[in-house]
Amino acid sequence: MRAREAGITIGYIPPGPNNTITDVDGVRVGHSTIISGGGPLVVGDGPVRTGVTVVCPREGWTWEEPVFAGCHRFNGNGEMTGLEWIREAGVLETPVAITNTHSVGVVHDALIAAEFEDNTEEYWCLPVVAETYDGTLNDINGQHVKPEHVREALADASGGPVAEGSVGGGTGMICHEFKGGIGTASRKLPDDEGGWTVGALVQSNYGRRHMMRVDGAPVGRVLTTEKIPSPYEQGTQAQPGTGSIIVILATDAPLLPIQCDRLAQRATIGLGRAGGGCDNGSGDIFLAFATGNRGIQPEGTVNPPPTVSTNMVTNEYMTPLFHAAVEATEEAILNALLAAGTMTGRDGITAHGLSSDLLLGALDEARALCGRR
Amino acid sequence: MRAREAGITIGYIPPGPNNTITDVDGVRVGHSTIISGGGPLVVGDGPVRTGVTVVCPREGWTWEEPVFAGCHRFNGNGEMTGLEWIREAGVLETPVAITNTHSVGVVHDALIAAEFEDNTEEYWCLPVVAETYDGTLNDINGQHVKPEHVREALADASGGPVAEGSVGGGTGMICHEFKGGIGTASRKLPDDEGGWTVGALVQSNYGRRHMMRVDGAPVGRVLTTEKIPSPYEQGTQAQPGTGSIIVILATDAPLLPIQCDRLAQRATIGLGRAGGGCDNGSGDIFLAFATGNRGIQPEGTVNPPPTVSTNMVTNEYMTPLFHAAVEATEEAILNALLAAGTMTGRDGITAHGLSSDLLLGALDEARALCGRR
Amino acid sequence: MRAREAGITIGYIPPGPNNTITDVDGVRVGHSTIISGGGPLVVGDGPVRTGVTVVCPREGWTWEEPVFAGCHRFNGNGEMTGLEWIREAGVLETPVAITNTHSVGVVHDALIAAEFEDNTEEYWCLPVVAETYDGTLNDINGQHVKPEHVREALADASGGPVAEGSVGGGTGMICHEFKGGIGTASRKLPDDEGGWTVGALVQSNYGRRHMMRVDGAPVGRVLTTEKIPSPYEQGTQAQPGTGSIIVILATDAPLLPIQCDRLAQRATIGLGRAGGGCDNGSGDIFLAFATGNRGIQPEGTVNPPPTVSTNMVTNEYMTPLFHAAVEATEEAILNALLAAGTMTGRDGITAHGLSSDLLLGALDEARALCGRR
Amino acid sequence: MRAREAGITIGYIPPGPNNTITDVDGVRVGHSTIISGGGPLVVGDGPVRTGVTVVCPREGWTWEEPVFAGCHRFNGNGEMTGLEWIREAGVLETPVAITNTHSVGVVHDALIAAEFEDNTEEYWCLPVVAETYDGTLNDINGQHVKPEHVREALADASGGPVAEGSVGGGTGMICHEFKGGIGTASRKLPDDEGGWTVGALVQSNYGRRHMMRVDGAPVGRVLTTEKIPSPYEQGTQAQPGTGSIIVILATDAPLLPIQCDRLAQRATIGLGRAGGGCDNGSGDIFLAFATGNRGIQPEGTVNPPPTVSTNMVTNEYMTPLFHAAVEATEEAILNALLAAGTMTGRDGITAHGLSSDLLLGALDEARALCGRR
Repeated sequence: MRAREAGITIGYIPPGPNNTITDVDGVRVGHSTIISGGGPLVVGDGPVRTGVTVVCPREGWTWEEPVFAGCHRFNGNGEMTGLEWIREAGVLETPVAITNTHSVGVVHDALIAAEFEDNTEEYWCLPVVAETYDGTLNDINGQHVKPEHVREALADASGGPVAEGSVGGGTGMICHEFKGGIGTASRKLPDDEGGWTVGALVQSNYGRRHMMRVDGAPVGRVLTTEKIPSPYEQGTQAQPGTGSIIVILATDAPLLPIQCDRLAQRATIGLGRAGGGCDNGSGDIFLAFATGNRGIQPEGTVNPPPTVSTNMVTNEYMTPLFHAAVEATEEAILNALLAAGTMTGRDGITAHGLSSDLLLGALDEARALCGRR
Repeated sequence: MRAREAGITIGYIPPGPNNTITDVDGVRVGHSTIISGGGPLVVGDGPVRTGVTVVCPREGWTWEEPVFAGCHRFNGNGEMTGLEWIREAGVLETPVAITNTHSVGVVHDALIAAEFEDNTEEYWCLPVVAETYDGTLNDINGQHVKPEHVREALADASGGPVAEGSVGGGTGMICHEFKGGIGTASRKLPDDEGGWTVGALVQSNYGRRHMMRVDGAPVGRVLTTEKIPSPYEQGTQAQPGTGSIIVILATDAPLLPIQCDRLAQRATIGLGRAGGGCDNGSGDIFLAFATGNRGIQPEGTVNPPPTVSTNMVTNEYMTPLFHAAVEATEEAILNALLAAGTMTGRDGITAHGLSSDLLLGALDEARALCGRR
Repeated sequence: MRAREAGITIGYIPPGPNNTITDVDGVRVGHSTIISGGGPLVVGDGPVRTGVTVVCPREGWTWEEPVFAGCHRFNGNGEMTGLEWIREAGVLETPVAITNTHSVGVVHDALIAAEFEDNTEEYWCLPVVAETYDGTLNDINGQHVKPEHVREALADASGGPVAEGSVGGGTGMICHEFKGGIGTASRKLPDDEGGWTVGALVQSNYGRRHMMRVDGAPVGRVLTTEKIPSPYEQGTQAQPGTGSIIVILATDAPLLPIQCDRLAQRATIGLGRAGGGCDNGSGDIFLAFATGNRGIQPEGTVNPPPTVSTNMVTNEYMTPLFHAAVEATEEAILNALLAAGTMTGRDGITAHGLSSDLLLGALDEARALCGRR
Repeated sequence: MRAREAGITIGYIPPGPNNTITDVDGVRVGHSTIISGGGPLVVGDGPVRTGVTVVCPREGWTWEEPVFAGCHRFNGNGEMTGLEWIREAGVLETPVAITNTHSVGVVHDALIAAEFEDNTEEYWCLPVVAETYDGTLNDINGQHVKPEHVREALADASGGPVAEGSVGGGTGMICHEFKGGIGTASRKLPDDEGGWTVGALVQSNYGRRHMMRVDGAPVGRVLTTEKIPSPYEQGTQAQPGTGSIIVILATDAPLLPIQCDRLAQRATIGLGRAGGGCDNGSGDIFLAFATGNRGIQPEGTVNPPPTVSTNMVTNEYMTPLFHAAVEATEEAILNALLAAGTMTGRDGITAHGLSSDLLLGALDEARALCGRR
């Protein structure tokens, strides 16, 4: 049950039809989920709890029809490759992939190979690959993600509903010491605010229990680790607060690159409202792309024209887009938590799922704690 | 009545002795408040509702004993001068002054003149002057701040309790469509988390009513502009969401410049929790300085040694400092609101004060709204 | 005699009709030069060797028709106000003014006042004011720039030829230990490279004698301070290498803001080729604006449309623009040196002018030194 | 024959004993060079002209004893992974590897595996891997770099003389349309300027022939592509100016992270003086690390102390370090060119080597061209 189905609303703006990042026309999401084995960790053998998620910004190949993009580093204790060109030119030319920390490389090279297979022209490619750390549940040093998983995730990419929770790159993730993973949400602005859609997809692996909030209510103070045990108290050396969150924002508004940067930074507010943003060990990196401009030539185009026509959102209209990004980010985190379920990984370490029953049962007590110690 | 006196607590960490930025040893705050006239706006005549606030990072002259500093631009629709050298070298060499948007210049030059009066050596100076817009209540185009007001604020600078609300640079400010202004708060970490103090001072002039939250509770949805009128509905052309917030963070932890940048960015989370962070028109710029390293020579030192000895906080210990910065920022905003009182400015426009009674009366209803629409 | 008239060519691309930043259609430059007194420094009395230069990016008021802009901080030991909004939104909404370090404030507030006089609507304004230090020749602490000098520079602003050398903000400046000041140059790309014009204007106050180069030839090693004395050896406490350079780049190409940032950074290459770029004490800050997009609404527009139409240069076409910016910057520095003439300032300190005769007489010897010690 | 052996000197500062980056105590460099096959390109079969170069900043494992580091993006058309944490915390925790564009991933994951093999503690790792494009000579889409090549380069890492030219990551690179590759140089400051060493290592793959300069002399205008053919005129779709340059700077000065950023940016000046810096298609990314501070705990340290003691270079002493970085970068590029030799790669495409004879034969004619068209 997603947040909205459980009767919890975040913010003011209505969601798009699926309340997913794929509500932005043309955006597709695919997962490859890798789960095998159990019991004690034997590096190379497992247990395996990991995967890859891809976000494709267009219907077709991104490199033939790039999108404007921007990014924000809220806390750089993590990796998102490909950001130098996005910072320089504001153009995203590949799908975005998200995986575990120690499989960034294999995914990187596999995205290049996938582009080559589809593209007989001479070319080059700087893929965007992001990560969070799943070594508390997964044999991360076994490096179990293989090129075929990337191809599988690309083949799986589609519009419409998006699988959430313990899937794809989110398979082995932990959030607020509950089971975390992939979550998504969207907002559709009214016509007089531009009528655009903003979608968020998160790979959510950050946070401490007692900091967790739902639309302001400090539920983490009610659902304590005494009541629902933390995976970090089960023999792992990893500490609470050492995870990360990757946020991908998409919109069909015709944002310029500099405006994508601005949108990306707003994910901070959504993360902060959910109870994140204070951990040195968290790699919190945000990417925003905007599909509303077409015909921006990729670098490899032979004989491009000197100029192309673009549109931009006037700055006054950025405000509703900012609100939409904040709301979608906060709700995507909550959706990830509600979808993830309980998972037992290496060495029997268990990350408990946050069911909607559990959450709804804690909410009233949590509400009353606002402003009280 | 400040937030804590009203029984409202924000966060987990205890405040310092005065719960002010001056709890950081050596930090001094001074105000010059300029209020005169009433009735219709006559540019150059008034009404005047403005001023200057200075934050001095050391006991003595900053230029003789600079501090490490860093900054963050959350939304650059504003001005804070002097940031290029802080970004380049991480050193703050002047007091920080905060005033209205159209008086940045006079304060800038007056800080230089004040340095020259005290310093017979040949020198140069790049002062830090920040601003928010008070033109809804104040004759901002009359440019009523004069050099003597800067001298007055510098002379007023002292440790200990800090005047809050409609004082100094905060005199004419508006926050969440209530009367805003200057606020401050602090946190003192336990010894096993380093034992350091973090203080925040805000000039708070941002935000929309319905977004306002107190420790998560959406009080702005209860104290609507129907109940407590907004100054923006009284004939001004300015719109809700066009203000700004300046946050100054101070700590006695021996942070390196790059760590000051990190601390500064955490003000975002405090701002987001209070209900800000989504307005295109808001200039949200944050400065953090750290007094824990001494003997960093100013640029003008004759024959400095090749190296000086410094300390740095290990990165693991940044986490409690981040929490402290977030909590102090959020509480400083609330303190500004509670202290400001009601003020009538130009053209009879009135910004209503948020009294503690008003707030406490709305809190239970607001708590119940978390997660509900 | 300018560089080209002296027979010295920099680079491959032909200049525009006047070889000035005003070759970019609509760009206007104005100066106010303040020279009075002589003999020993008496702070407040003089001698005065300073001024203000303004660059107006459009025919009319910038705030009614802003331009896209970007910036680069090569070495932040200086000030350029107004950069936070340029970094955030990529829009320049005021003329750019350049003056001395201790007069930034008065110029800042005077630009605001000038906007208000012309603009009866309620508004706010974040002007761009840059500086370099002229205290070696000028009574900088006397703060002799007054609001009327800003109005004078604005009234003087026109297209066509631009006065260079010891004029406006460049009046008291020193470059490579010669007399420096204002310089300008331009490049006009061939049609198959877009046909655009790039202009540069510098306020040139940086550098050491022995580092000076002209199109690669190390002329500073020939025209040593033994031959042509340095002003820094005449009793001032300032040291060689403590000045700064401000570079303003303009183009009629329809660059997006992110592309203006890229263009601005290329000024580094021009500066490096002229012999700069290695001094801690130099404030080297670059601004680029692009007039090729019109109709970008200023913030204050009432009821702007949700989107506006823009054009962008395709990235492949950035390369010739980069070359043009590099060449124009290098030549503008040389033009400033050649135009400045000898000036004696406070305490009889003399900065010698680099005449074209002097330069041409040194060039062959300098050429032969390439690659030799 | 290196530049200095050929009688060409760049700048004022003497080199260290080997005139290599390994003159910085503890820095080690290793290469793995992969050359096989010839004739027409068959993707997956070859010809192969590629490799990996590693720079290890310390004697032992970097993750046990990290170094302060900073970076600069001059033109982000390229990749250097691991920069988010360097930007955030200023700490380099892995060796730096440089390879071809389409092998970044395999090198990334192999560096992680190498750390794991050596480190039985639970850990995570964000390696720094940079790239330039060698697809004009190499079967880049064959992805011929394998994990064993990374292990080989790590095993090869040593102090002392460094192999230059067509080795390691530089094997298939092209510079100013000559054969390029790996180059290095160093500078040792006199004791009264701190006495520190600065070393540069470049993987040089950028530039156009006619722009090439040697200490200012435009040798590229003499050694035209009519005289020495360009590889880009032999049937490849790649264009001149589409390569890149990676610059790694090392110093034993105790720089803070923010000072490493400053040092890194100075590579721009060295690149500009050599004739680079104007191409949209060039990925010019610079990393600087400083070994002068020890005992900065890695993230994974159990129970670190709250603070550690560090030293910093006073800012006045940055100037000679900047000069050293500029000179070492420019000379490293020239050394790469002189060492590379002629190489024939895929489809018979030949990149001609710039021998010292060729260079010396062109130098006088080039010198005379300074300032002339």
